[in-house]
Amino acid sequence: MKVLVDLSVVPLGVGLSLSKYVAACERVLKEAGLKTALHANGTNIEGDWDEVFAAVRRCHEVLHDMGVPRVSATLRVGTRTDRVQSLEDKVRSVEEKMK
Amino acid sequence: MKVLVDLSVVPLGVGLSLSKYVAACERVLKEAGLKTALHANGTNIEGDWDEVFAAVRRCHEVLHDMGVPRVSATLRVGTRTDRVQSLEDKVRSVEEKMK
Amino acid sequence: MKVLVDLSVVPLGVGLSLSKYVAACERVLKEAGLKTALHANGTNIEGDWDEVFAAVRRCHEVLHDMGVPRVSATLRVGTRTDRVQSLEDKVRSVEEKMK
Amino acid sequence: MKVLVDLSVVPLGVGLSLSKYVAACERVLKEAGLKTALHANGTNIEGDWDEVFAAVRRCHEVLHDMGVPRVSATLRVGTRTDRVQSLEDKVRSVEEKMK
Repeated sequence: MKVLVDLSVVPLGVGLSLSKYVAACERVLKEAGLKTALHANGTNIEGDWDEVFAAVRRCHEVLHDMGVPRVSATLRVGTRTDRVQSLEDKVRSVEEKMK
Repeated sequence: MKVLVDLSVVPLGVGLSLSKYVAACERVLKEAGLKTALHANGTNIEGDWDEVFAAVRRCHEVLHDMGVPRVSATLRVGTRTDRVQSLEDKVRSVEEKMK
Repeated sequence: MKVLVDLSVVPLGVGLSLSKYVAACERVLKEAGLKTALHANGTNIEGDWDEVFAAVRRCHEVLHDMGVPRVSATLRVGTRTDRVQSLEDKVRSVEEKMK
Repeated sequence: MKVLVDLSVVPLGVGLSLSKYVAACERVLKEAGLKTALHANGTNIEGDWDEVFAAVRRCHEVLHDMGVPRVSATLRVGTRTDRVQSLEDKVRSVEEKMK
């Protein structure tokens, strides 16, 4: 089952500079071979359900290994059976309607 | 790894009455033996990471099997290494501070 | 316009014990006269759009006044024109389908 | 008070093609003079709290005017008092850590 996920990871207990941790999570996603698109409040991910969620779990583990005692993440998760849709399709579809 | 998840499942393409689908997802979570607490905008889930996310995946699958062509879910996901905290602990902790 | 909101407030830069801040936000919502229902990962709120969002803003302000340098919140926001639905209606509707 | 918001709007009861409605919401945000950045699962918005949330309310209203009976939105909302941070700052900060 294919899934599109928008993942936002918030490390707690390590102060206010979070980009180091977000970057570590990005590396995990890349190493997992997943297609991703970083934005200001998260990362869009496209891939097979099990591979995506294994990588999300790995993000939590890597952050804890870096000394983060608490990780609070939010995810938007989309699956559909009517047709295949990529991250680019979703953006393009909205942009076309805005012309 | 233990995880607390707040799951909200939104079926698309099946009209406005969504409770039947939310109930089906609740049953999936119960059958998985997970501790859950239903609220007006989702369900809190407590359990082992892999068991929780296998059940979330099963929710999507069951909804698609019921004829839902598109499922949009949002999750709040919390892990921590400093201490063990249950769903009840979190509510109780806030309520005590409100006295 | 009536709205149902599920609000989760995460204070950053103040360590790992967050319940004091969540309780302060709960008090703001109560003082605003809004109907609320606390759960393990947030608070459901029912009310008029402008009153609800004025209170959400006030939560951020009160937390900053308490010394929280950064507040990260997530909200699920629902409006509908087909019928009026309360927080209790939503829970009851799912529970009935589970019998 | 300045705020960064990640808004995802899901119209219910109008089938599976949602981009028309997302585009209408984008136009509302543009007309409000807000800085935005569209991504595959939502739109990042930067601006003054009251202006941003007035525009979010207007999105719901415009969708209902277009015949959408139910709108389910999710928002990530960030405020901070330690420093001013733009949408571009957040992306750049992560990208620098990934080099």
